[in-house]
Amino acid sequence: MPYFDAASTAPLHPVARQALLAALDEGWADPARLHRSARQARMLLDAARETVAEVLGARADEVSFTASGTQSLQLGVLGALRGHRRRGSHLVHSAVEHSAVLHTAERWEADGGAVTSVPVDRHGRVSAGEFAAALRPDTALAVLQSANHEVGTLQPVAETAALLGDVPLLVDAAQSAGRLPVPAGWSLLTASAHKWGGPAGVGVLAVRKGVRFSSALPADDREGGRVPGFPNVPAIVAAAASLRAVRAGAEAEDARLRELVDLIRHRVPRLVPAVEVVGHPEQRLPHLVTFSCLYVDGEALLTELDRAGFAVSSGSSCTSSTLTPSHVLAAMGVLTEGNLRVSLPAGTTRAEVDAFLDVLPRVVADVRAPLGLDLALPADGPADDHPAGALVLDTLGRRCPIPVIELAKHIGEVAPGGRVAVLSDDEAARHDIPAWCEMCGHTYAGEAPAAEYGGSHGTAYLVQRS
Amino acid sequence: MPYFDAASTAPLHPVARQALLAALDEGWADPARLHRSARQARMLLDAARETVAEVLGARADEVSFTASGTQSLQLGVLGALRGHRRRGSHLVHSAVEHSAVLHTAERWEADGGAVTSVPVDRHGRVSAGEFAAALRPDTALAVLQSANHEVGTLQPVAETAALLGDVPLLVDAAQSAGRLPVPAGWSLLTASAHKWGGPAGVGVLAVRKGVRFSSALPADDREGGRVPGFPNVPAIVAAAASLRAVRAGAEAEDARLRELVDLIRHRVPRLVPAVEVVGHPEQRLPHLVTFSCLYVDGEALLTELDRAGFAVSSGSSCTSSTLTPSHVLAAMGVLTEGNLRVSLPAGTTRAEVDAFLDVLPRVVADVRAPLGLDLALPADGPADDHPAGALVLDTLGRRCPIPVIELAKHIGEVAPGGRVAVLSDDEAARHDIPAWCEMCGHTYAGEAPAAEYGGSHGTAYLVQRS
Repeated sequence: MPYFDAASTAPLHPVARQALLAALDEGWADPARLHRSARQARMLLDAARETVAEVLGARADEVSFTASGTQSLQLGVLGALRGHRRRGSHLVHSAVEHSAVLHTAERWEADGGAVTSVPVDRHGRVSAGEFAAALRPDTALAVLQSANHEVGTLQPVAETAALLGDVPLLVDAAQSAGRLPVPAGWSLLTASAHKWGGPAGVGVLAVRKGVRFSSALPADDREGGRVPGFPNVPAIVAAAASLRAVRAGAEAEDARLRELVDLIRHRVPRLVPAVEVVGHPEQRLPHLVTFSCLYVDGEALLTELDRAGFAVSSGSSCTSSTLTPSHVLAAMGVLTEGNLRVSLPAGTTRAEVDAFLDVLPRVVADVRAPLGLDLALPADGPADDHPAGALVLDTLGRRCPIPVIELAKHIGEVAPGGRVAVLSDDEAARHDIPAWCEMCGHTYAGEAPAAEYGGSHGTAYLVQRS
Repeated sequence: MPYFDAASTAPLHPVARQALLAALDEGWADPARLHRSARQARMLLDAARETVAEVLGARADEVSFTASGTQSLQLGVLGALRGHRRRGSHLVHSAVEHSAVLHTAERWEADGGAVTSVPVDRHGRVSAGEFAAALRPDTALAVLQSANHEVGTLQPVAETAALLGDVPLLVDAAQSAGRLPVPAGWSLLTASAHKWGGPAGVGVLAVRKGVRFSSALPADDREGGRVPGFPNVPAIVAAAASLRAVRAGAEAEDARLRELVDLIRHRVPRLVPAVEVVGHPEQRLPHLVTFSCLYVDGEALLTELDRAGFAVSSGSSCTSSTLTPSHVLAAMGVLTEGNLRVSLPAGTTRAEVDAFLDVLPRVVADVRAPLGLDLALPADGPADDHPAGALVLDTLGRRCPIPVIELAKHIGEVAPGGRVAVLSDDEAARHDIPAWCEMCGHTYAGEAPAAEYGGSHGTAYLVQRS
């Protein structure tokens, strides 16, 4: 079954598996002890640290291992903020960082800190100048990802770093560490081994020599006092071995995957009606492409594609237990509905991608079929029921994508220049309706209390037909 | 090479290795996703949670997996304290808890909380009544280990829990979870898989239904909101499988190991002069014995035993990077010097233990030899140099065990009833000298500024010869 969800987790690299097995035999003991087995574990741990440091462009004593990318981000952000308390308590990050950064920022704010989220453009990219302009005299830390995990857009990290003066910059390299050189200018660097084909259970947190760091957790003497707890030596050894292996072959493999992704980017809008490919067209990760299919639910698409044998992911509801729309897509101002992320693992073949492109149009059409929506046909005349000068579509109590579907069904009923008011109490509509307007060429005319249009509660989203 | 350091980490159980390999193939995907590989990982994770819950006497939804026993303790202690803030901010723990608890308590105190450390007796055991008496109206959490990690003493957990009323009790079962049933009465329970033969990278944190818990770290939706980050499914599967396996055979294996440990407890004091076996003689873990060899450095003993082919541990300097004496031995009031912990993994043979007992006396004698200390001969008369009514032994600038060695060498120089003042600036002397007095039957007469005995700085420890 083709697995196109490498950005969630990459299949274990053969080198990782081999190294893990060897290290289970040789590196199982406690590296902090003094006997022979312990010394052996310590030597393996030291060697793994050297390898990871070398590949990421750090010194070995700057590198600590955590249990996950999320732990690296939490400990890194909080440790740097605590370490730079004398500067102040202001944190700057882009609006499209990993949720671990956003949750940490929320906690920091709840505990009395200040946070600025820097907006991104429609491709999901920050402007270096705009990012630097968010700095304040009390800024203690800036956080910027190397590449976005949902849409693959590369951020201008080196360019931004050059504008930050002496404000420390944490770079989240989780999506790029196994593929691309780490951008210059980081003070703290985080990554996650299972994203590059290493085992689960290993994150990287590098802190540049001289950068102040004060652990947010009670420290012990493990990992330079930055990460408490018994280190998982066999998994760390496997992570290091696979990082070296994937980076050695990355250039060739990335070029190959980039061609397959270009194929998907080019073909999908020609095979499936009402699709928007999102993310930066050039400044992007080689293996990842994201697109949104209008009028359908991402989860329904996932389920059908899974049934057809393809494993992909969706930013519409990025995990099986959260139904909130992706903050990344929302920050980009693109549709959050019907979203699919296709991320190709190493070794993906052209035949697998062709098979996906073969299946996708049918799957989307099947999911759309029950909606009774004729995408090719705009309706032909104004309706007679728009008392307040607008056609009112009451979708209160109904979840996205219904509000947008209703809008698409009925906008043809008003004359060009005429207005539609969509009443909705689903927060997702606030992003989706403007995004739909932009995509379809209509004018989004703002919002008003639904009560002004006869609604019992909620918001009226106003659209002017072009 | 006989490995007698199971209490640091147990060798990987064959069942764990087998389960890990299988789960690397079947459970590598992100269990939070919706596709087939993800569902498979989720099923494995759910099954592992059921297994661990069943063995530990919990409900599956009470069990979360962390990255280590230390992380379980940190998140458990802080999460429970935060969850019970309305009760107050007072934490009670025994003086011999794992350093992760002590470090967390220090952090809690530094952040404004209150902490009471309950003393233990000479065997390292708390009294249930004394523990309960430490409760205050604002006590938010009590922490008590099931068994001590350095000396093996079992704590009266169920008896203590019965006296705590509605104050939640966190039980640290790291040393006992693979061997003994979990004691009744816990509100939170922690354990660590690599202590029972599971892989590194898996801790357990169980929180009883209804016990308030507020994560100390920014939460995500993993592990019931209690532990953030990508879960290490293959390692968790291996941990669960090995827990079931070791507990199924625990009763027979523990009886066998108990006999071997009894042999060591009985023989060591008869083979090696000036040895004290520490820890409770009956209420103890089956596989662990700790003893202290007077007048020598634990690290030197470790090194020599390692050279002779035996891997043991020492509470004298419990890791290769910390030289502070064990807080456990200090709290017990026993010698912190020349300490050895022997902890037998499953499968240890009688022949291995016999070989150890064969080697030990020679190793201790070799390490003691350069000290020029005749253990069999107390010196025969009072020295003439005790101007202030006491023989002054200036050991300023010299580390333990030198102060005790000097004391042992020279106490015979004063008449019975006469006094010796040992001048020392090594903090370890504060514990070691009274402990030595108790062991040798002399009277410890308190401390005074070294200046009163002609010292430039430091403390004078006063001993009255019996």
